[in-house]
Amino acid sequence: MKRTTILLIAVATLAGAAVFTATISRRATAQEPAPIFVKKVPVGYRDWKLVSVAHEAGDLNDIRAVLGNDIAIKAYRDGKLPFPEGAVVGRIAWSHVSSEENNKTFGRDQSFVAGSPTDAYLQFMVKDSKKYAATGGWGYSSFDKDGKPTDEAAMQKCFPCHQAIKDRDFIFTRYAP
Amino acid sequence: MKRTTILLIAVATLAGAAVFTATISRRATAQEPAPIFVKKVPVGYRDWKLVSVAHEAGDLNDIRAVLGNDIAIKAYRDGKLPFPEGAVVGRIAWSHVSSEENNKTFGRDQSFVAGSPTDAYLQFMVKDSKKYAATGGWGYSSFDKDGKPTDEAAMQKCFPCHQAIKDRDFIFTRYAP
Repeated sequence: MKRTTILLIAVATLAGAAVFTATISRRATAQEPAPIFVKKVPVGYRDWKLVSVAHEAGDLNDIRAVLGNDIAIKAYRDGKLPFPEGAVVGRIAWSHVSSEENNKTFGRDQSFVAGSPTDAYLQFMVKDSKKYAATGGWGYSSFDKDGKPTDEAAMQKCFPCHQAIKDRDFIFTRYAP
Repeated sequence: MKRTTILLIAVATLAGAAVFTATISRRATAQEPAPIFVKKVPVGYRDWKLVSVAHEAGDLNDIRAVLGNDIAIKAYRDGKLPFPEGAVVGRIAWSHVSSEENNKTFGRDQSFVAGSPTDAYLQFMVKDSKKYAATGGWGYSSFDKDGKPTDEAAMQKCFPCHQAIKDRDFIFTRYAP
């Protein structure tokens, strides 16, 4: 078993190195900037497991869920950093709205629920250490409710903030028990 | 393959019928009250898909996620009511705590995240029209962080409130897009 694993890792590393070399030379030729963001909404994200929830007050005024694909969830649960290749962490943000129906039942104004999608409805971080080497191994993305990605200039702001938590592999959200 | 599946379903149905008959006759003999609540945390609930999120302010002061098993999620997505037999809707509540780390990054106090489990950490509604006929076909449950169920007297309060939304099959939470 162990030998097979080591062999597989060796092969994967070599394959990765080959891809990386190819990417470098192509980029060098075409003078393309390194990609830092992801332009497609990951398929099936709404079926992913829950990492945690949060509420951003102030201008954002949203309530949000953070989900992870199976690779990300396993890493979270195992408490292993850095996240492995292929991990994707997503967050969905809805407007934070008062629920009249719930408040009536509770007999007081206390209940806030998920309303309509916000302008930055979906955001994802995709782990690909080679492709996104310039931004800590993560590609960033943000989409509105119609799946339209945020413009590239705005996406330049992601990584500088996430650098604050480099020691947790750039991911703010902790796994909720 | 198909034959095996059908056979398994048939066996499961028969077994279910037998258990149901046994339950009925035992209850009739012992004059037990109809069960209205569930005393075991459903296995694997933390892997279920997300229905929505909410924030209860005031005394509860929690942030919560509502999850559903596959039967419940399918019914939600199909927009079909009533929920079919076997549907389970669960909610996890964590204390609503300010995140110093996030606030520092945002440059303002606006961020609230999931803290420790609340006293009513886990709640589930389990659809079984026969078993829980007395409470609209749903069994109710509430557990603290150690999996200890809330006492039976407190559980009597669930159904009266949920009757307010009988037309949505007694489930408050709507599916978030």
